[in-house]
Amino acid sequence: MPSTFGTALRVQIFGQSHSPAIGCVMEGLPSGFHVDLQELQRFMDRRAPGHNAWSTPRKEADAPNIVGGLNERGETCGTPLAALIRNANVRSGDYDEIRRVPRPGHADYAAWEKWGNSHDIRGGGHFSARLTAPLCVAGGIALQVLKERGVRIAAHVSQVGQAVDEPFCALDNTPSSLQKLRRQMDTLRSGQDRGEFPTIDPNAGEEMRQVIDLARQDQDSVGGAIECVATGLPAGVGGPRYDGIQGSVARIVFGIPAVKGLEFGAGFAVAGMRGSQNNDSFELRDGKPCPRTNNAGGSLGGISSGAPILFRMAVKPTPSIGLAQDSVDLVSSEPATLHVRGRHDPCVAARAVPIAEAALALALLDSWLAYPPAKA
Amino acid sequence: MPSTFGTALRVQIFGQSHSPAIGCVMEGLPSGFHVDLQELQRFMDRRAPGHNAWSTPRKEADAPNIVGGLNERGETCGTPLAALIRNANVRSGDYDEIRRVPRPGHADYAAWEKWGNSHDIRGGGHFSARLTAPLCVAGGIALQVLKERGVRIAAHVSQVGQAVDEPFCALDNTPSSLQKLRRQMDTLRSGQDRGEFPTIDPNAGEEMRQVIDLARQDQDSVGGAIECVATGLPAGVGGPRYDGIQGSVARIVFGIPAVKGLEFGAGFAVAGMRGSQNNDSFELRDGKPCPRTNNAGGSLGGISSGAPILFRMAVKPTPSIGLAQDSVDLVSSEPATLHVRGRHDPCVAARAVPIAEAALALALLDSWLAYPPAKA
Amino acid sequence: MPSTFGTALRVQIFGQSHSPAIGCVMEGLPSGFHVDLQELQRFMDRRAPGHNAWSTPRKEADAPNIVGGLNERGETCGTPLAALIRNANVRSGDYDEIRRVPRPGHADYAAWEKWGNSHDIRGGGHFSARLTAPLCVAGGIALQVLKERGVRIAAHVSQVGQAVDEPFCALDNTPSSLQKLRRQMDTLRSGQDRGEFPTIDPNAGEEMRQVIDLARQDQDSVGGAIECVATGLPAGVGGPRYDGIQGSVARIVFGIPAVKGLEFGAGFAVAGMRGSQNNDSFELRDGKPCPRTNNAGGSLGGISSGAPILFRMAVKPTPSIGLAQDSVDLVSSEPATLHVRGRHDPCVAARAVPIAEAALALALLDSWLAYPPAKA
Amino acid sequence: MPSTFGTALRVQIFGQSHSPAIGCVMEGLPSGFHVDLQELQRFMDRRAPGHNAWSTPRKEADAPNIVGGLNERGETCGTPLAALIRNANVRSGDYDEIRRVPRPGHADYAAWEKWGNSHDIRGGGHFSARLTAPLCVAGGIALQVLKERGVRIAAHVSQVGQAVDEPFCALDNTPSSLQKLRRQMDTLRSGQDRGEFPTIDPNAGEEMRQVIDLARQDQDSVGGAIECVATGLPAGVGGPRYDGIQGSVARIVFGIPAVKGLEFGAGFAVAGMRGSQNNDSFELRDGKPCPRTNNAGGSLGGISSGAPILFRMAVKPTPSIGLAQDSVDLVSSEPATLHVRGRHDPCVAARAVPIAEAALALALLDSWLAYPPAKA
Repeated sequence: MPSTFGTALRVQIFGQSHSPAIGCVMEGLPSGFHVDLQELQRFMDRRAPGHNAWSTPRKEADAPNIVGGLNERGETCGTPLAALIRNANVRSGDYDEIRRVPRPGHADYAAWEKWGNSHDIRGGGHFSARLTAPLCVAGGIALQVLKERGVRIAAHVSQVGQAVDEPFCALDNTPSSLQKLRRQMDTLRSGQDRGEFPTIDPNAGEEMRQVIDLARQDQDSVGGAIECVATGLPAGVGGPRYDGIQGSVARIVFGIPAVKGLEFGAGFAVAGMRGSQNNDSFELRDGKPCPRTNNAGGSLGGISSGAPILFRMAVKPTPSIGLAQDSVDLVSSEPATLHVRGRHDPCVAARAVPIAEAALALALLDSWLAYPPAKA
Repeated sequence: MPSTFGTALRVQIFGQSHSPAIGCVMEGLPSGFHVDLQELQRFMDRRAPGHNAWSTPRKEADAPNIVGGLNERGETCGTPLAALIRNANVRSGDYDEIRRVPRPGHADYAAWEKWGNSHDIRGGGHFSARLTAPLCVAGGIALQVLKERGVRIAAHVSQVGQAVDEPFCALDNTPSSLQKLRRQMDTLRSGQDRGEFPTIDPNAGEEMRQVIDLARQDQDSVGGAIECVATGLPAGVGGPRYDGIQGSVARIVFGIPAVKGLEFGAGFAVAGMRGSQNNDSFELRDGKPCPRTNNAGGSLGGISSGAPILFRMAVKPTPSIGLAQDSVDLVSSEPATLHVRGRHDPCVAARAVPIAEAALALALLDSWLAYPPAKA
Repeated sequence: MPSTFGTALRVQIFGQSHSPAIGCVMEGLPSGFHVDLQELQRFMDRRAPGHNAWSTPRKEADAPNIVGGLNERGETCGTPLAALIRNANVRSGDYDEIRRVPRPGHADYAAWEKWGNSHDIRGGGHFSARLTAPLCVAGGIALQVLKERGVRIAAHVSQVGQAVDEPFCALDNTPSSLQKLRRQMDTLRSGQDRGEFPTIDPNAGEEMRQVIDLARQDQDSVGGAIECVATGLPAGVGGPRYDGIQGSVARIVFGIPAVKGLEFGAGFAVAGMRGSQNNDSFELRDGKPCPRTNNAGGSLGGISSGAPILFRMAVKPTPSIGLAQDSVDLVSSEPATLHVRGRHDPCVAARAVPIAEAALALALLDSWLAYPPAKA
Repeated sequence: MPSTFGTALRVQIFGQSHSPAIGCVMEGLPSGFHVDLQELQRFMDRRAPGHNAWSTPRKEADAPNIVGGLNERGETCGTPLAALIRNANVRSGDYDEIRRVPRPGHADYAAWEKWGNSHDIRGGGHFSARLTAPLCVAGGIALQVLKERGVRIAAHVSQVGQAVDEPFCALDNTPSSLQKLRRQMDTLRSGQDRGEFPTIDPNAGEEMRQVIDLARQDQDSVGGAIECVATGLPAGVGGPRYDGIQGSVARIVFGIPAVKGLEFGAGFAVAGMRGSQNNDSFELRDGKPCPRTNNAGGSLGGISSGAPILFRMAVKPTPSIGLAQDSVDLVSSEPATLHVRGRHDPCVAARAVPIAEAALALALLDSWLAYPPAKA
């Protein structure tokens, strides 16, 4: 089912940009877990636009309302957790033009071929980035469950246009590099608590904001990349082949609008490497086998190796741009020129940071519940 | 389930490297389709080692035996299609050392954490690249069904070490570039029929063979990348979000051993692009809307756009290398040095070409059966 | 997943008796279907208590609020349809006793073994019959889609205690018996529109009401049975074996609280029959093969035969009774005597009639969408 | 998928009556379990025809060949277990007549509407009772895993025509009735080891054999019923609603050819009972809550209560009878008279006994793995 993912932890996303509400249902959460609603709201705020200087000023009140799945003490009770976010502040004005003239880079035309006129085109319908809000509700809860189990997740904008951030220190797996990684994660967390642009290096963040501002001034947009890491996942989580850790992450990540690429560990660089460089040799640490490097990105044969899970994803430039674009009038079958109106976020990378964290949290918690280490 | 994928076309892979057999079950194939067993065998031969000069000389008789799902005339009869490949020629000699000392880059250690001593370590068990043979059986049948529906799929080795092939002419979507793409696909097909290295440019293929030979001489291995394309898929196939075309491809591709990265269309390059560059504007062609460029790789919001589906995947260097590697003895908990014996393929990229085609064929046929265009 | 069912039409039920809301998400509905909200409300009213003389006077406002899945014209738009019913009028008073002393015939004890104290015991939690309201929302929409395709569904209370109703004329499949069946279905529909007890024979309904009244006076309850039929389903719908029509109905029916038995067509009577009696021979009708009798209940090998789909299900007496019952104090581990307080429906059979119709509608629509006749 | 069932333990059945082989794939078995192949064969022999006096003399060598999923010591290794049974001894003679003239009571006509001429009609194809052999392979392995966990399963023929066997002493749950139940199960086991008809009371078995013989002499067949019980399942296994114990059993049971009814515990009798009779009150036994009676058949709200799981299923008379039957020629669209040739089992009840046990074992093991008690 297109709007559902997960094996033991099954998440269903519903709603459209302008329907009365959007939301999610999570089935398979461990019972007896107390959901911290304030922490969840703080996590949601990181995704919401209008909370910071570099994104669209439209304010969405992304306040999730949990309507099922908790007992009277606010603990998960073993049944599906359902959460709703009202769609207030929608201006479903005139979508007739968009219905006629598909926007380049958007799913309008593909959806028209799929559903014809019954597609809910208002605000992008089910394809809207707004649908990442319920993903973050589910992911925010998964993050809390994982935190209790010792797993910590962080992400940053690693690239916007030609501007790049310092990478996570996670391709190495020595004790000192793990320590540096933890510091990077702390830096990111405290920066985001202060509402800063989510980079490890503040200078890179400043540079990225300038790249975005330039694109905005040109009525254009710009793409970016996100790097995401999880520490503390024990070895032996996940399954071989098609429901392994890489595949589980991929299934969710490629369901995030605008994502066009995904790589784990050394990623595409492996194509240019030799085995003797790429293989992560093992050493003993506290009597336990431990990979010394982490080119594998923490996953061997779909199963966690004990090293950090590390991935990078590329997000394309926001397709809604003010510049004139060529398109086609679906009704008259004539060429048309499109001017996308309204104020759009010229770069979604910063907002994609908590979304990437949510995706990784959901994939890892699901893998852990469905395919735990035998020794656990 | 780790060894299963698909929505309307469900594929289950079973067996281990040294179990009596490996195989697959496909449920959901259209009924009444005549499977061409000779064409299937020719497709299987492209994956098998020992059929060409650049891979390991061990000969596997990858002759699939279809034991269920066909009627007396060799047509699919509406019930699951089951195929078996015998594991002959296995030398399950002494696996005690491998059981004790996990090979870097392999899933040995992760599997030990997952299953302890019950893991079938012989020949890599369920993680073996041998398990891509039943994937190719399923994919080879999907390719035949798609061919009848006008879809054509091809792949080539786009990179080995620093050597690169000419790319598919598929980021552009003009009539002339589509024509060039078809010529590239024809070139690849005829070259492979002659047993050549699967590149578009023969010089690139020659260069790659040299890179591989050098790695072999050094008792080392080398990584690579595969580019894969499908033409002829109508617009409107696939579903939004988590079961869209990108996600369906990703689920299968990340289940192929050694894959560490996947990108569609412009892929990771989108991070450096502007919206005005990346958006694929529409024009009319034969009265139908058609994207002029194909940075989207044929998928918008998980749904096909009518342009070629295009992806690239990175495969890591073969982890089995002759050079000494550091590891750990799981029984004695002491450091150990490992020498992987036996003759291994120093680069799996060439053999991964039909595997990538199989993966794309299965993802596209499944998407088409599960989520067809409404107008069809 | 326990709260989910269906293959191509996937339904997820969420919420507990006293959570803020209950609801359902349906994924896989055909797009472009206009949902008639008034007709849906009329269907919901047939399930709700307090709308008639013979059930509990507690009034529930079962007004479904569709928050996602419809476009601006109220048509299904291809994305998940999500509906909510608020849980107003809940008195979550003192559930401490029920938490300590499980009620016989309820799931209290089983849920305690499963989830311990995290189970939401208020009002029966996820096990409450209230959760059949979202099932009826989903089923009511499925009924509308099926109606447009020519399928009609009806059910009646066939037994309460020793009182029995006239059965559906559906074990025979002659033109005249089909005509009589249609008259029975008309009678039921108009009777229910007038708020009558759902029997074909009004005298049987009167007798059943007396049996229920007697049980109520005795602070006891009484069981019943429902018979349900669908006409107009073409031959060839459904799949063989485990996802066939019988299995799909069974999966939903055994998820309805209180159901302890299910039979199709001649049902348990087949145990005493000979093949020559039970086989439904074929004859030509309008040039088409047609079974003359319908002992198969419309399903052969999991696939529809063209004859009416016919099933019967048994519902146990309401476990909540005023009479003293023996139980156990889970905290003190001592015997305890339980008096279930509050006003409970002494027989759920009448309310189960629309639930049975909803279950059949969902199973048939799902089967049709997932496994249509090849010739269609 | 029609040929697949299960949640955490997923079973796929493949093959047709006359395809080269039939088989099953089981994914999700606990790893490290040693499969006893001899015990499995003994279990298979109980289903096979030709092993006893009362069934068809055709001998099938139902020797399962496990081709994947075991390690070198014969233990499950965490990957899918795949088993094959060759279809030797098939006489795919002339099926042209059957293809033209569907047999009453068989799926021939329904399959023709579904798949037209591509259906594999030879020997009944995928609908053949032969496909219960791989179900028994999977179930026989599940029985071994359950046995190790303290669960024991038995079934008997409870009815053939008007002849009835003594029922299991399982509606009561006192220590003495549980003891009597165990004796009944011992009796059944030893009787079946001696090749006797599977009844608790040998006189009932003798009577049933006469009923069957009479039907055979008349070239007719006769129906029957099976009662099946499991002891030793802890309380708290299973999930609420649609994936509960009743639903999981139902999904498999209604996939067994010829089954037309299923009831748990008091079953259809609940329709005539009062709550005070039907509710199973609790008492303390060894400090643990225990239902005193077992009208619930061991399942409350889909979750096990600790009492025996008890169900009954009705199997229709074998549709293949020698008597002349009316049918229709699908090619000429004219009435036709059918004489089913060949020797067929006039009653499948005895062979359905191990099939019922297999179905229950698979449903319970799956429920246990997917939804274990929280306290375990």
